[in-house]
Parts: sequence; structure tokens; C-alpha cells
Amino acid sequence: MGHTYAIIGCGAVGGYYGGCLQRRGVDVHFLVRSDRDHIRHHGLVVQSKTGDFHLPRVNVYDNPSDMPRCDVVVVAFKTTGNHLLRQILPNVMKDKSVVVMLQNGLGNEDQAAAIVGADRVLGGLCFVCAHKVGPGHIRHLDYGMVQLGALKPAGADEWLRQIASDFERAGISMTQVPDLRSARWQKLVWNIPYNGLSVLLNANTSQIMAAPEGRELAGQLMREVTQAAAGCGRPLPQGVVDSMLERTARMVPYQTSMKIDFDAKRPMEVEAIFGNPVRAATAAGVAVPRIATVYEQLKFLDRQNQMSLAT
Amino acid sequence: MGHTYAIIGCGAVGGYYGGCLQRRGVDVHFLVRSDRDHIRHHGLVVQSKTGDFHLPRVNVYDNPSDMPRCDVVVVAFKTTGNHLLRQILPNVMKDKSVVVMLQNGLGNEDQAAAIVGADRVLGGLCFVCAHKVGPGHIRHLDYGMVQLGALKPAGADEWLRQIASDFERAGISMTQVPDLRSARWQKLVWNIPYNGLSVLLNANTSQIMAAPEGRELAGQLMREVTQAAAGCGRPLPQGVVDSMLERTARMVPYQTSMKIDFDAKRPMEVEAIFGNPVRAATAAGVAVPRIATVYEQLKFLDRQNQMSLAT
Repeated sequence: MGHTYAIIGCGAVGGYYGGCLQRRGVDVHFLVRSDRDHIRHHGLVVQSKTGDFHLPRVNVYDNPSDMPRCDVVVVAFKTTGNHLLRQILPNVMKDKSVVVMLQNGLGNEDQAAAIVGADRVLGGLCFVCAHKVGPGHIRHLDYGMVQLGALKPAGADEWLRQIASDFERAGISMTQVPDLRSARWQKLVWNIPYNGLSVLLNANTSQIMAAPEGRELAGQLMREVTQAAAGCGRPLPQGVVDSMLERTARMVPYQTSMKIDFDAKRPMEVEAIFGNPVRAATAAGVAVPRIATVYEQLKFLDRQNQMSLAT
Repeated sequence: MGHTYAIIGCGAVGGYYGGCLQRRGVDVHFLVRSDRDHIRHHGLVVQSKTGDFHLPRVNVYDNPSDMPRCDVVVVAFKTTGNHLLRQILPNVMKDKSVVVMLQNGLGNEDQAAAIVGADRVLGGLCFVCAHKVGPGHIRHLDYGMVQLGALKPAGADEWLRQIASDFERAGISMTQVPDLRSARWQKLVWNIPYNGLSVLLNANTSQIMAAPEGRELAGQLMREVTQAAAGCGRPLPQGVVDSMLERTARMVPYQTSMKIDFDAKRPMEVEAIFGNPVRAATAAGVAVPRIATVYEQLKFLDRQNQMSLAT
């Protein structure tokens, strides 16, 4: 018998990875907010460049207490819903279950650890380009690799190995990172400048990189991220800023997830991607005035966006 | 015989102050970019809460070499046109004429001084709410006070007195400031946060002040301005930040000139209000990372705006 998986959230990340796992025979249970009836009746559709597939019968719930407790709980909703973890996790975990946080930004594993204990928390960084196009309907455009690590590596080896094996069998490349927090900081070197600037400057990655001011802003924000990471005991490799700037300049134009959320007037992941890193840097005595400025600007725009929906 | 005045630019500032001077009998000559024929045929209309007036015959030119040389040259166009000063000023000044820079931001007097000599340059800070609503048509909404000072105060007393007398006779309150650069920095304490944030956050002053993040950003930017001013030898009065925040929070909602320019896709005064203060602070060894961030962001948006017009 393989492990049972609870996939919390059936957006792009949960729908794609959960769908891939179920397709290869894993026992998967989805917790969703609003699409339960649609998915029960129509199943889950994944359009992917690696092959489309349809899962007509999916175990789907909208209440965590209706779900079976699972061995592996994959948190795959946006961090803006993390206040719900306290209601969800205790309902879906067994004594020995682990949580895998497949979310953006910093501090999400710590939030889960505060509920279930640090020994049982893993985190994954998803390098995937996918969108939810409708209820139970995911479009996977490119990539898909996951970097997996444990919040407390000691003793987590067996879980890391088994989960990687399940994902690999499902066609997902999953590599282990020796230090999860380093990997989180390194991903922020990209996420902080491009998510923030895409919203504030109404621009995609190519437009940001085509203008000298955009490139300058991106580089300055990246340098502050590396200073914060070093101050928090996670020095990043030399040259990470220049190589990330170069790679992004050569990429096809990319619209960030934060810009997509902003344009759709959905809450943006401001705290996970900006607030938590700013607080971590400040606690470590590292000044990050540029990131802090962008953080306050995004909080302002997020508030205005949500207020405009309320009226 | 009174002094002759050349008013360079017939937008809100030039049209209002020049119109007021001519109405009280001053010999005024306007240099305009595009509205010469309209103003020649229809004159100048000023609608003002202090009384509307119409000047049917106005001396108006679109070429500085067609103008008579005047005693006082009032530069009243936006700083985005300051590259034109080198063509204009030598054509409209006599040996003893002075220039009065009625513009926003920092460094404009120095630009004029590089052309005509520092002894002959004065500057005025306009506290006026007025708009150009069409060719030769100005709407004056409120205020109007001008603070006047000389770039080199020694020897400028007589000019300051006479110009103030002309403006006062025209119904404009004009006070002398002992140090022009201090006054310029003090006005930047307001202009930097509200002009910048209004564009970046798509908000008027009330919206900025109603949100905790907006107030925080405004306060942080103001503090950097006071640090820059002090570093440049112009310490500002204690409490200027708090009193400016409080006054703005109580003001009626105000749309800044930079936001109006941005929305109309006109060039924004980014260099005068942001670039020159950032360079002055940097030269004085004062770090202004928040102002520098907003500066780069505005340059990016200004470039995008102008590019969208070009295509």
C-alpha cells in the first residue's frame, strides 16, 4: 500500500501535482474551498504540454472533517489563506503524518510547525508554470520541478525519499535541497523584485528588464535579498544576482503570479513574499529599505483592491 | 515707468501670475510654445475665486527672438522643458535683467545660473492651485502665495523688494525667504512623498493618508528628505514631518500635479522633484534609498508613458 495524500487546495499547484499523483495510482483526497460540486460531477481536467488527461472520479471535500486522515498533507493554496491552517491540519493528519508546504515566500513552514510541530513539516519550492482556468480545470504550460526539503532535516530522510519517489513516479522531477531556508531565500531573489515591480510598474519581466530603471530596481532589490539572507545565516552563492538578472533578461516575457492576482483583484501574497522576509531581515539587524518600500506600496495597493471589491 | 516682465510659459502658473500682473497695468510679454495664435485672437481668460477677468489684448510670442528684452524674466513652464532655457534666456534678457524661476523641485536656479550667472537668478515657490483648462484659459482654484528668494542673497535686496511690490500690487501675496535652498528643501518634504506616491499608488492625498501603509510611506520619505536637507547644510525645523503629515491628513482630497501629468501622459517632473534631490543627497553622503526607489519607479513609468505615445 502506498501513502495517502491530502491535497489542500485545487488551484494550479494542487490540481496539477495532485492530478499527476492520482493518475499514477496514488490515493489522493482534495480539499477545496468552492469547487466541490463541480469537481464531483465533472472530475479534474489537466491540459499539459506533457499530455492532457481527465480524472473523471476525484475524492473531493469542502470540509476537512469529512476527509480521511492522510499520510502526506500537501498544502497547495495561496499563503493568503494560511490563517485556515489551524482549522485544517489537525483534521487531516494522523499521528505520523507530515505536511508539505508547496507555497511561495518565507515563513510558511514555521506557521505549519506552530500547529503540528517542526519535526513533521517539509517544504517544496515549485518551479512550475500552470494556471487554473476554471473549476477543476488546470492548464500546465511549462516546467514542474519541485525542490523538497525538511524544516528539521535530522530524521526526515525517509519521508523525503518516499515523497520524492511518489512524485517521480507521477512524472514530477523532485530534488532534495540540503537547506530549505537557503532555498527559500534564493527563490526570493527572483520573487521579490519581479512580483513587486510587475504590480507597481504594470509590466512583465521583459518590460522590466528592457528599461535601465527596471533593471536597476530589480538588481537593487535582489542585492537587498542576498544581504538579508546572509544576515539570517543563509549566505547565497556568489554571482546569484547577476546570473538571475541575465537569465530573466533572456526569458520569454513572463507575467508574475502576483500581477495576475492583482489584475484579478484577488488578495496578493504580500506577507509571505515581502512581509516575512522584511521582518526576518529586521530581526537580524539587516536594513532592507528598498524591499520595505515595495512591501508598503504593495500592502497599500492590496488594501485598495480589496476595498474596491467591498463597495 | 514700471518694469517689463517676460513670462515664459502660459500654463497655470504663467497664465495666472502673468495675467494678474498685466491686469494691474504691468507691461507683460508671454512666450508660449503652441497657443500663440489662439491667445492673439482671443486673449487670456482667468477664472478665479477672487474674480474672473479677461485680457483681450496680450503680447504673445512663440519665438524668443521676436520678444522685447524685459527687466524681469519669469520662468513658468514645467521643468521638463528646462533644456530650452539656453535658447530662451539670452534672447529675452538685458544686461541688468533678472530671472525668477517659478518651478517645482531642486536645481532649477542652478540651471539658470549656468546660463546667466548666479547674481541674476531668483526663485519663487508657488503655493497655488490652478489649472490650464485650454489655450489662454486658466482656472485658479485656491491660494496663490509666492515665497521669493535669491540664489545669492547678497546684493539682491532691491530686486526682491521691487518684484514683491509688483506682485503685491497685482494682488499676489509674495513673501521673502531668507534662504531659497532651505525653502526648496522644505517644499520637497511635501512634494516628494505625495507626488511620487500619488502616481505609484494611483491615489490622492486623502487616500494615501487614510491607509496606514500610505501614511507610513509618506512619513518615511519625508524623513529621508529632512536627512538629505540637513546633509546639504539646510537643516529643516524640528517637527516639520509630523506637522506636514497632520496638515495633509486634514486637507481636502488633493490630486498632485505629477499625477495629473501622468494621467494625461505628459512628461512628469521626475528630475527636478526626485533626481536632483537624490543626486544632491548622494553627493553629500546621505543615503536616501526610499526616495531613490521611488525615483527609479517614476522614471520607469515616465518612460513607458512616453513610449506608449511614440507608438
